[in-house]
Amino acid sequence: MATIKVPPIVPSPAEDCEQLRKAFQGWGTNELLIIAILAHRTAAQRRAIRTAYAQTYGEELLKSLDDEISGDFERAVVLWTMDPEERDAQLANEAVRKWSQSNLLVLLEIGCTRRSEDLYQVRRAYHERYKLSLEEDVAAHTSGDFRKLLVPLVSAYRYEGLEVDQKLAKSEAKLLHEKITEKAYGNDELIRIITTRSKAQLTATFNQYHNEFRKPINKNLKSDHQNEFLAALRAVIRCITCPEKYFAKVIRNAIDGLGTDENALTRVITTRADVDLKVIEEAYYKRTSVRLGHAIKGDTSGDYKDILIALLGHDDV
Amino acid sequence: MATIKVPPIVPSPAEDCEQLRKAFQGWGTNELLIIAILAHRTAAQRRAIRTAYAQTYGEELLKSLDDEISGDFERAVVLWTMDPEERDAQLANEAVRKWSQSNLLVLLEIGCTRRSEDLYQVRRAYHERYKLSLEEDVAAHTSGDFRKLLVPLVSAYRYEGLEVDQKLAKSEAKLLHEKITEKAYGNDELIRIITTRSKAQLTATFNQYHNEFRKPINKNLKSDHQNEFLAALRAVIRCITCPEKYFAKVIRNAIDGLGTDENALTRVITTRADVDLKVIEEAYYKRTSVRLGHAIKGDTSGDYKDILIALLGHDDV
Repeated sequence: MATIKVPPIVPSPAEDCEQLRKAFQGWGTNELLIIAILAHRTAAQRRAIRTAYAQTYGEELLKSLDDEISGDFERAVVLWTMDPEERDAQLANEAVRKWSQSNLLVLLEIGCTRRSEDLYQVRRAYHERYKLSLEEDVAAHTSGDFRKLLVPLVSAYRYEGLEVDQKLAKSEAKLLHEKITEKAYGNDELIRIITTRSKAQLTATFNQYHNEFRKPINKNLKSDHQNEFLAALRAVIRCITCPEKYFAKVIRNAIDGLGTDENALTRVITTRADVDLKVIEEAYYKRTSVRLGHAIKGDTSGDYKDILIALLGHDDV
Repeated sequence: MATIKVPPIVPSPAEDCEQLRKAFQGWGTNELLIIAILAHRTAAQRRAIRTAYAQTYGEELLKSLDDEISGDFERAVVLWTMDPEERDAQLANEAVRKWSQSNLLVLLEIGCTRRSEDLYQVRRAYHERYKLSLEEDVAAHTSGDFRKLLVPLVSAYRYEGLEVDQKLAKSEAKLLHEKITEKAYGNDELIRIITTRSKAQLTATFNQYHNEFRKPINKNLKSDHQNEFLAALRAVIRCITCPEKYFAKVIRNAIDGLGTDENALTRVITTRADVDLKVIEEAYYKRTSVRLGHAIKGDTSGDYKDILIALLGHDDV
């Protein structure tokens, strides 16, 4: 369930463009007006605004935004304004070019939480923008087990039907348990199962695993010392079986502790606000007993805070 | 360039259906009429005929064909009548379920000679028909180096632009040469390059290889004893750099020697007749000094021969 609020009567794209242009002109920028418009439009409406804006003013809306605003606020507004597939392509490209554990998460996330058709659209947008394929870039910038895991994840076109083969779930749960017990985390079969089976099938396999071996698979994927590959495997499994808990955890990590990880916070809010942010909010509350809006207000400020709160649907339209 | 001939005035789908129905009824089947209609319609026209047929007679055209005709003729007519993506999905599925060197070729061929968008459509058709993903099936039925090669090939969404990075071509040609010299044919980097780079980039890399190491890469991929994996790598490279020569060779192998490999012959003719069979014909002639139509007439007979010749565009409409 999405969180954004769209007014009952939506102005025409031409009207929205005119207001945005006003927000950009004169002394200083009217950030609140930018939020009042863009944070309250669906992806299709934002697309129509961008098209009308380019036609009317001969300049890309994203370019104008880039000139007028800055910092975390700019990043949130720009990412949100983009088409979902274009945004994911950009996030993936940034992640590929700057290798780190948290950037690795971005690739896993895109590979595992998008619908199959949407992931394909991301790959298309990637071609268009970067003149390379997503899997080509991921493969060229990774190696070893990480490559073995990430390349099929970003190339996947998982079957999305709900059919489950219980016999297969049983045999593959056993295979997974065997490999995990041997600590063969990069094993070909383990990676094959996780990267190619449908989400319904994998859920059945993980349930089977839990029943038969009396521990959830993710508990068996913990190690005493920090192991980035194991963390990646756990993230994949969480993305597949309970994306809302996964995203709630990314937000918790971004907010908790000293300082805020604005990049991660912005990413989750802008990519999920018109998908399932409502469910993520609930998962966050269940785990922390703190309302997400409250937590964000406490950890961010200014226009950046305002856009996030607006995307959460907590401002007054 | 396609070979099929479509009459200047094409009957309506309803008229075609009526004629087909006539061909099926009464004593014996009128095979020539079936060929006269189906072998002379484009993919879109065949699709329209199938839709009209199902609406009018409450039965799938493919089912009626299956009831009325048989053997190699049936297989050719049915494969040809299908949508290209549906046909490829079926060919891939048959290949996956019956592992052999020649079936391996089918998967390589589909992965490497289809346009990126078309390969995606094949994966979509595969979901619909088999309730599994193509890569899932390929991964589950293969292992070792073959899996490492085939899974990314059937999951690829290669960039199709013509941009070439010459520096990259140089460094990757060197890397390929290094691995080939070490006989490390299943090396991760070698497979990464071949399965993810765009065809334009790969062509530049292979040219660079030829220039710098004074031998075409495929010559360096030959071994004294038969090696199926090396043969697969050579086929991939041929599919990418000169698909018409690759297909001409598949046809040669199918026709030459004792007996005919009808499966391979039918596959190439039905999948390429509305794509590039004309160019394949030329490549065949160049290599054998025999006209492809002549070779097929000499090696096949009856209705099967007639449909192949019709798809080659050599019959009188």
